[in-house]
Amino acid sequence: MLVSISLLGFGNVGRGVARVLLEKKNFFKRKYGIEFKVVSISDSTATIWDEGGIDLKEALMVKENFGALKYWGSDYEIYHLSPIEVAEEVESDVFIDVTTANPEAYKWHMEAFRQGRHVVTSNKPPLVFYYTQLAQEAAMRGVNYRFEATVMAGTPIITLLQESLKGDEVISIEGIFNGTTTFILSEMEKGLTFEEALKKAQSLGIAEANPDVDIKGFDAAYKATILHDVAFEPISFKKVKIRGIDEIKPENIANAQKNDNVIRLIAKIERKNVIVEPKKVSKNSILAVYGTSNVAVIRSDLAGEIILKGSGAGVKETASAVVSDIIKAVKKE
Amino acid sequence: MLVSISLLGFGNVGRGVARVLLEKKNFFKRKYGIEFKVVSISDSTATIWDEGGIDLKEALMVKENFGALKYWGSDYEIYHLSPIEVAEEVESDVFIDVTTANPEAYKWHMEAFRQGRHVVTSNKPPLVFYYTQLAQEAAMRGVNYRFEATVMAGTPIITLLQESLKGDEVISIEGIFNGTTTFILSEMEKGLTFEEALKKAQSLGIAEANPDVDIKGFDAAYKATILHDVAFEPISFKKVKIRGIDEIKPENIANAQKNDNVIRLIAKIERKNVIVEPKKVSKNSILAVYGTSNVAVIRSDLAGEIILKGSGAGVKETASAVVSDIIKAVKKE
Repeated sequence: MLVSISLLGFGNVGRGVARVLLEKKNFFKRKYGIEFKVVSISDSTATIWDEGGIDLKEALMVKENFGALKYWGSDYEIYHLSPIEVAEEVESDVFIDVTTANPEAYKWHMEAFRQGRHVVTSNKPPLVFYYTQLAQEAAMRGVNYRFEATVMAGTPIITLLQESLKGDEVISIEGIFNGTTTFILSEMEKGLTFEEALKKAQSLGIAEANPDVDIKGFDAAYKATILHDVAFEPISFKKVKIRGIDEIKPENIANAQKNDNVIRLIAKIERKNVIVEPKKVSKNSILAVYGTSNVAVIRSDLAGEIILKGSGAGVKETASAVVSDIIKAVKKE
Repeated sequence: MLVSISLLGFGNVGRGVARVLLEKKNFFKRKYGIEFKVVSISDSTATIWDEGGIDLKEALMVKENFGALKYWGSDYEIYHLSPIEVAEEVESDVFIDVTTANPEAYKWHMEAFRQGRHVVTSNKPPLVFYYTQLAQEAAMRGVNYRFEATVMAGTPIITLLQESLKGDEVISIEGIFNGTTTFILSEMEKGLTFEEALKKAQSLGIAEANPDVDIKGFDAAYKATILHDVAFEPISFKKVKIRGIDEIKPENIANAQKNDNVIRLIAKIERKNVIVEPKKVSKNSILAVYGTSNVAVIRSDLAGEIILKGSGAGVKETASAVVSDIIKAVKKE
């Protein structure tokens, strides 16, 4: 089976996906009988578009050596298309959106569905704010919408909730879904103030220049909303109660440590009720994660308590989820 | 959709499945549009068979009050059919085998496939010894073979391996898949000898009168073999290296404890290599489980390390896996 792909976003994740498609080519052919043909790649400067398929090795080389696809003039035509034009005009089986947050992104997904394409994404806001519309449009067009990479990177919590526990009713999901806050809180455990820990995170590239989306709890709340949508039903983001870690003081950390506790940004998801807030958890609890580890404790009526833990970030890990989704999307047809 | 079921085995697990089908009837109708009709129930004494559907409430009542289906004479015809006759003659969409180990069980599954029925089972030996033949026959007949309940009860490791990580190659799975040995080893940590701990396990119904299958490591090895088959390719059970816990002495436990370790029966699964043996693990390691907890650490080339932990035993938990499999089997048609 020949599967054509339109790849929107050629940053770390987009290039990670391209690298997996390139390096594991024989594996996909052997295991699934699938050959991938990437017919377009877009970064913020340009779109390379060739129905015959783009040489991924060269694309990676150009992007990594020259910084932008617009400098790649010799072999391919350079197009200047908006994302929605890519979704509409580039003929592909699967539209992959691995760009970062853009309030308009749901429109691209909608357009791709209208054109009969599956959509695979790591982009959270469309799921958080337009889940119902997007899921309905995909169902109506008979295509698949997959978004494993939006929560816990390559750790397959979305697929677990969708494909397992079919006879169970989920009671709650409790977990840690943001690594930046874990990093800052762990550094504070070593004696840094919040501001010092944040600066360290920024200098290491763990926190962004504008860190609000992480430290104010929005990123965790986005993920918790997506989990609520999958485990229960769509919930309005306005109903999510969010408290970030920006008000945590060294004395809060010290007090927690005195009782063998640590503070972590915990998301708790129950039907119609999503809360993200810093909470004390025992140092020996499964919730006392470090580094980029994410963890989810899923409680359901029959299976009881199931714990899923793994990396919540990373290029290869996120590419794992995106590529798994591509295969699931086209094998389910 | 009306789904007819033939239920072989009416012990704890079989009754657990019947109870879920009965109690969550409206849930299955609402969520999946599925109505279940159980057309036969067999225990070791008799088969109740009614194409119109059996009253599950009454069946549970009879079995629990009189101990055997053969005493249920008033409402239904009593049949004396061998399991293979049930698989052949009882018209059903799904054949459920929740009996305990019987060397002939693979023949029942083969016959059910030949008749065009999906098979859902918690019965390990058919998978361990006839995986290739059974998987081929199911594929040839266009039906599904599902066995989530064979490993980790309701904790969905089989589905995770089958449905997630599609672009990944598994490197290894390490874990604890037998609760009886965990119980005995934990009791030895409290000062009991192996024999005393085993007797306690037997008196509590945790170990069987003939405990060899657990303590000699066969049960864990069966499960490890099934995981190898799913994660890699079929492996001959003869190639599995097995050492049980029956030679663990109080001094081994004490020595481990001195260094903050515990001993657990660990299964390690790599391509073409399955080893089950007692091993020291740090008290703080995720492998230091207690009670009926099972845990699996899955390592793969892209997603890295994924930990799945949950109950590995229990009636409701096992029923969760069986019922999830039934729904997956019929929804995939």
